[in-house]
Amino acid sequence: MPRKTVIIGGGAAGLGAAGGVKAADPGADVVVYTEYEDVAYSPCGIPYVHGKEIPDFERLFLAGKQTYIDAGIDVHYSTAVTALDTAHKVVTVVGEGQVSYDTLVVATGFNYADPGVPGGDLAGLYYVKNIRRAMEWDKVLDSVKKAVVVDASPLGVEMVTALAQRGIETHLVDPYPWPLAEMVDPDIMAPVEESWGELGVVAHYNSTLEAFLGDHSGHVRAVQTSEGELEAEIVVVCTHKEPNNTLAAKAGLKLGSTGGVIVDARMSTSASDIFAAGDCVEIPHGLTRVPLQGLTGSHAYAQGKVAGANAGGGNRAYRAVYVPWGTPAGKWVIGGASFGETTATALGIPYVVGTAQGISRARYYPGVKPVKVKLLAEPGSLRLIGAQMVGQEGIKERADFLAMAVKFGFTLGDLATMENVYSPAIGALNEPIVLAAQNALDSLKRR
Amino acid sequence: MPRKTVIIGGGAAGLGAAGGVKAADPGADVVVYTEYEDVAYSPCGIPYVHGKEIPDFERLFLAGKQTYIDAGIDVHYSTAVTALDTAHKVVTVVGEGQVSYDTLVVATGFNYADPGVPGGDLAGLYYVKNIRRAMEWDKVLDSVKKAVVVDASPLGVEMVTALAQRGIETHLVDPYPWPLAEMVDPDIMAPVEESWGELGVVAHYNSTLEAFLGDHSGHVRAVQTSEGELEAEIVVVCTHKEPNNTLAAKAGLKLGSTGGVIVDARMSTSASDIFAAGDCVEIPHGLTRVPLQGLTGSHAYAQGKVAGANAGGGNRAYRAVYVPWGTPAGKWVIGGASFGETTATALGIPYVVGTAQGISRARYYPGVKPVKVKLLAEPGSLRLIGAQMVGQEGIKERADFLAMAVKFGFTLGDLATMENVYSPAIGALNEPIVLAAQNALDSLKRR
Repeated sequence: MPRKTVIIGGGAAGLGAAGGVKAADPGADVVVYTEYEDVAYSPCGIPYVHGKEIPDFERLFLAGKQTYIDAGIDVHYSTAVTALDTAHKVVTVVGEGQVSYDTLVVATGFNYADPGVPGGDLAGLYYVKNIRRAMEWDKVLDSVKKAVVVDASPLGVEMVTALAQRGIETHLVDPYPWPLAEMVDPDIMAPVEESWGELGVVAHYNSTLEAFLGDHSGHVRAVQTSEGELEAEIVVVCTHKEPNNTLAAKAGLKLGSTGGVIVDARMSTSASDIFAAGDCVEIPHGLTRVPLQGLTGSHAYAQGKVAGANAGGGNRAYRAVYVPWGTPAGKWVIGGASFGETTATALGIPYVVGTAQGISRARYYPGVKPVKVKLLAEPGSLRLIGAQMVGQEGIKERADFLAMAVKFGFTLGDLATMENVYSPAIGALNEPIVLAAQNALDSLKRR
Repeated sequence: MPRKTVIIGGGAAGLGAAGGVKAADPGADVVVYTEYEDVAYSPCGIPYVHGKEIPDFERLFLAGKQTYIDAGIDVHYSTAVTALDTAHKVVTVVGEGQVSYDTLVVATGFNYADPGVPGGDLAGLYYVKNIRRAMEWDKVLDSVKKAVVVDASPLGVEMVTALAQRGIETHLVDPYPWPLAEMVDPDIMAPVEESWGELGVVAHYNSTLEAFLGDHSGHVRAVQTSEGELEAEIVVVCTHKEPNNTLAAKAGLKLGSTGGVIVDARMSTSASDIFAAGDCVEIPHGLTRVPLQGLTGSHAYAQGKVAGANAGGGNRAYRAVYVPWGTPAGKWVIGGASFGETTATALGIPYVVGTAQGISRARYYPGVKPVKVKLLAEPGSLRLIGAQMVGQEGIKERADFLAMAVKFGFTLGDLATMENVYSPAIGALNEPIVLAAQNALDSLKRR
């Protein structure tokens, strides 16, 4: 009898897991249950189609349904899994009854946090997630003149930028004093806020959402905030992502402080033969060991592959994360690794800091862009513990590097003396990372 | 009496040294001798002005002459230093006589290797170096229809691209089977060659230069090669860079196998109180300890700063190099770190290899570009020993990272499991470096 692996969820983690099982055990029976009509599209691309930077939704599909059939992966679409019995190793599937498994991967993803205010059932509240709904909403956006985005979360930042670029008068309502305030430092976000201003965005920081207000037809007409009423034809609700842990909790899998399923390095849960991956799990930060949840699609996919490999009889580890991140925001790209000053301060982690305003190409080369780099290091050892950047070119690649620099304990001295490519069209004489490290060392010397 | 430091050479190394002395000892007398009319411009930008990517030569100037006066650095322009007496610590300067020094920095740069064929004294042979000559040559180029570039050196590659982009029928004559054959692998150069073809470049590989042929007015009219005669209104001679070691050799400074001045980690030469930096020195490769000479402007500047700091009484080290490099070539950008397969093979260094054809953004995001990454690792330990790439976006930043990865001994396993930013507009789900490392590991497993 071939091994039978059931995977609950058809997102990046679930499909990563399906591939992982097949790689470890090509003969395994792999069944994927998804509540949606599709798999293998990129939800991360949706805001960019809304912003007209990507011309159509069709491009977001990575593979057709036949691809999975050909790979021996049996995807059941529009199917809900309602229960998981870990003792008898069966799941309950609507319309299929009880389905047994040898190994199981929970990849149930996230839900947006309930905004918790009156009016949540009005029409016109858009939660960005499913691509078919996104296609419908995109047509609605054609005639929208005024929109409100709730919360300057990563998705909120993308949607504010997208709606403003589309010419919609966009208001942002956020309880914090600057966007992405829980993860990004204010000096990094300042240029983003400025460029939003140029795009006509009206931001309402320190502003509490109090209610969604409807018209008599039950459609949202405004958002009530601590600052007053904001008119809106649609409201994009970008509250934070919570782990979709309902099934796992009912089945008795151990959950952590974030609500995410607790997994070990093999992505194994507290129940035998059950693995989990993606937005429904929590993973320790490499330095602080603080559990993180709701990372990126590439994390979900990588975790899924490990979970799947182990569910298929393999033995692979997924290590702690150092979280390189990056995203366009307004006319800028922001990014970093590990954490910034705001998080370090909140966690009580001491640090020394060095900042530099560098450039992406030779000063005289057309298209040269500013690159601001901020490095945080542990006092004494001067080992890098975090970095944040705002610029336009090369932010992603620097973030990937800096995450490895944190992971491998590079010091400010290592970074201050690193060699860099100098070629006028692609790199400046002085790499901004090197300048930031040198500035940190110089300011320590002056103390 | 303040310390007196004499610096011979006004390029990146010489001016880096001048700044280094002043940083270490602000009261020092610093005198810089340069044979040219200017300092502080970027010679690296010249090919891009010829190619019309940079609109004018004025932009290449980094600082005016007053900047150096203000910084207390006394630059003597158009001045030749003809002798160095290490025993009496004096230099002989044309028009100034004997000038004494306490410490000295030799930063005499490079000369292009003599092509060693008849006709070298004809008019119309262009050696790219001095910016004032470049301005004159740029006017000549306005009426040139046919040009020959001699040697597919790094400068040769830039000049072929520049002339072709300017609409000049450009022939390349090179003795090797592919461009940059001594440092870059043929699979990395293949797309570059293809894009040159699209620009109308005619490349003559495996072709020996035999003579420059002149008309009766003493101007070049053609180049004689082993393949026949190639008409040319101008010839850009891009032979390899040799250390300009005449003065150092006469003074008895120890020279290495490349002809470069031998320096220790403090950039100190074999003569007391004499330092050297830039294209006139040789520096060991971090892994192979093979001496390298003729690195980039950023290496020269960094070496100059160290030499200057030590000449000013400080104590700084310049470490061995892992040589991140990158340059536009045709419509591509090529780059890497340490060495590729060609060099590894030539040096008899065993390696395992992994290659991946990745992408720079999400597959569906407009402007997505291919990024090919090749990684070389030491058999057994699987430590990274070199990397080469061809792509368009993010090559410089990846090269900087990979040089650090070589220096710090990252393994293929480290790279195969590294996290990466995934955000559709700036990075793909799978980082090409990760894919190349995974491919290397997969192919080792299959063995």
